[in-house]
Amino acid sequence: MTARPETAETAETAETYEPTETYEPTGRTVPTRSRERARYDRATVHAILDQAYVCHLGFVRDGAPVVLPTLYARVGETLYVHGSTGSRPLLAAGKADPGLPVCLTVTHVDGLVLARSAFHHSINYRSVIVHGTAYQVTDEDERRTALDALVDHVVPGRSADCRPANARELAATAVIRVDLAEVSAKLRAGGPNDDPEDLDLPYWSGVVPVAPVHGTPVPADGLAPGTAAPDYLAAL
Amino acid sequence: MTARPETAETAETAETYEPTETYEPTGRTVPTRSRERARYDRATVHAILDQAYVCHLGFVRDGAPVVLPTLYARVGETLYVHGSTGSRPLLAAGKADPGLPVCLTVTHVDGLVLARSAFHHSINYRSVIVHGTAYQVTDEDERRTALDALVDHVVPGRSADCRPANARELAATAVIRVDLAEVSAKLRAGGPNDDPEDLDLPYWSGVVPVAPVHGTPVPADGLAPGTAAPDYLAAL
Repeated sequence: MTARPETAETAETAETYEPTETYEPTGRTVPTRSRERARYDRATVHAILDQAYVCHLGFVRDGAPVVLPTLYARVGETLYVHGSTGSRPLLAAGKADPGLPVCLTVTHVDGLVLARSAFHHSINYRSVIVHGTAYQVTDEDERRTALDALVDHVVPGRSADCRPANARELAATAVIRVDLAEVSAKLRAGGPNDDPEDLDLPYWSGVVPVAPVHGTPVPADGLAPGTAAPDYLAAL
Repeated sequence: MTARPETAETAETAETYEPTETYEPTGRTVPTRSRERARYDRATVHAILDQAYVCHLGFVRDGAPVVLPTLYARVGETLYVHGSTGSRPLLAAGKADPGLPVCLTVTHVDGLVLARSAFHHSINYRSVIVHGTAYQVTDEDERRTALDALVDHVVPGRSADCRPANARELAATAVIRVDLAEVSAKLRAGGPNDDPEDLDLPYWSGVVPVAPVHGTPVPADGLAPGTAAPDYLAAL
């Protein structure tokens, strides 16, 4: 977690200073139901964000909602998303002043929960919902940092083992940032919550675990001679 | 695919009648970029929808976007989502007239695409984006059909092998429907698209396949004696 001193008074203790261990709940981040599933601590939120790399980015266009899957990366208390300079949400984030309101959601499915009753069937999951404003990143150093993070978020270590973006590629790439401020996690874990009167019913009940698995890497045609699969792929 | 005769004239050929094999592209479903990745044929869209069970449902609340992960099921040309009668989007779908504008997105990640250049890194994926209007389902037969479909969409065959919802549970459950009309799929497959001048660079390039995998089912405590894991779990 990045220390983020907010004032000069705290700067001297920046290395160890944590302004707060939790995100402040708001009207938008307190769920109307299953409040016991909500979490606001940064450690839980960061862990969920760091394990995934595809989010669903929501914004409003012509009054209607749009939800697009896209890659993201976290750097400290900021999420970065990138895309073509011609993509609609990225254009909108550049044009809008002050920024484009977005909702960015990340979800892991961990298991299928089968209860004796249809009603208590459920999913074990961990999700994070970020409400905020997307801004185009124009600072070139921050853009480079974000683009490296986007590569490393998918395959840790990869950004140092490929050709960096050149000027033309950088010019074609838009980067937007969303600060982590109005944020909540929500999660369900464990077995089914069957009603006591259903426990003797003759139906199997339990959890089927689910997890994404990486397969054997498939090399592209024409790799340069001697180019072996790097160690960071095995670490996936 | 469900045959959907639209007029009396076509009803006599309902069993084989297909009004169209594709969804009509609209301004919202034609992407601004990577148009070669877009698909509108129902077979592709249905296959992507039927393989997943968690979607990301977007709607607008107080002018801002909200994106929630939720279960869904497809029945013919309709998607169903359910939840507590107290949940915000479901309440909104009931109150809004004529319905609640939504965007419902389903995404499969199939592979990590590592190119010689950072710029050409990508993800192999298949996604469907549905723009439409959510309506509360009030017809009891349709509600039952939808709730069974929601269980069977996650675990095919399960709805017939658990206790059906009782009157109290049905009263606590809201069901919304979104018809498949303004729909597109988008997909990327295959290897990296490296620039020709990068092919001799000494970086590994290729695809790391990704897929969700089901683990060994974990039975709940206190299963009734003789309750074995059903065959439909093995079929997952």
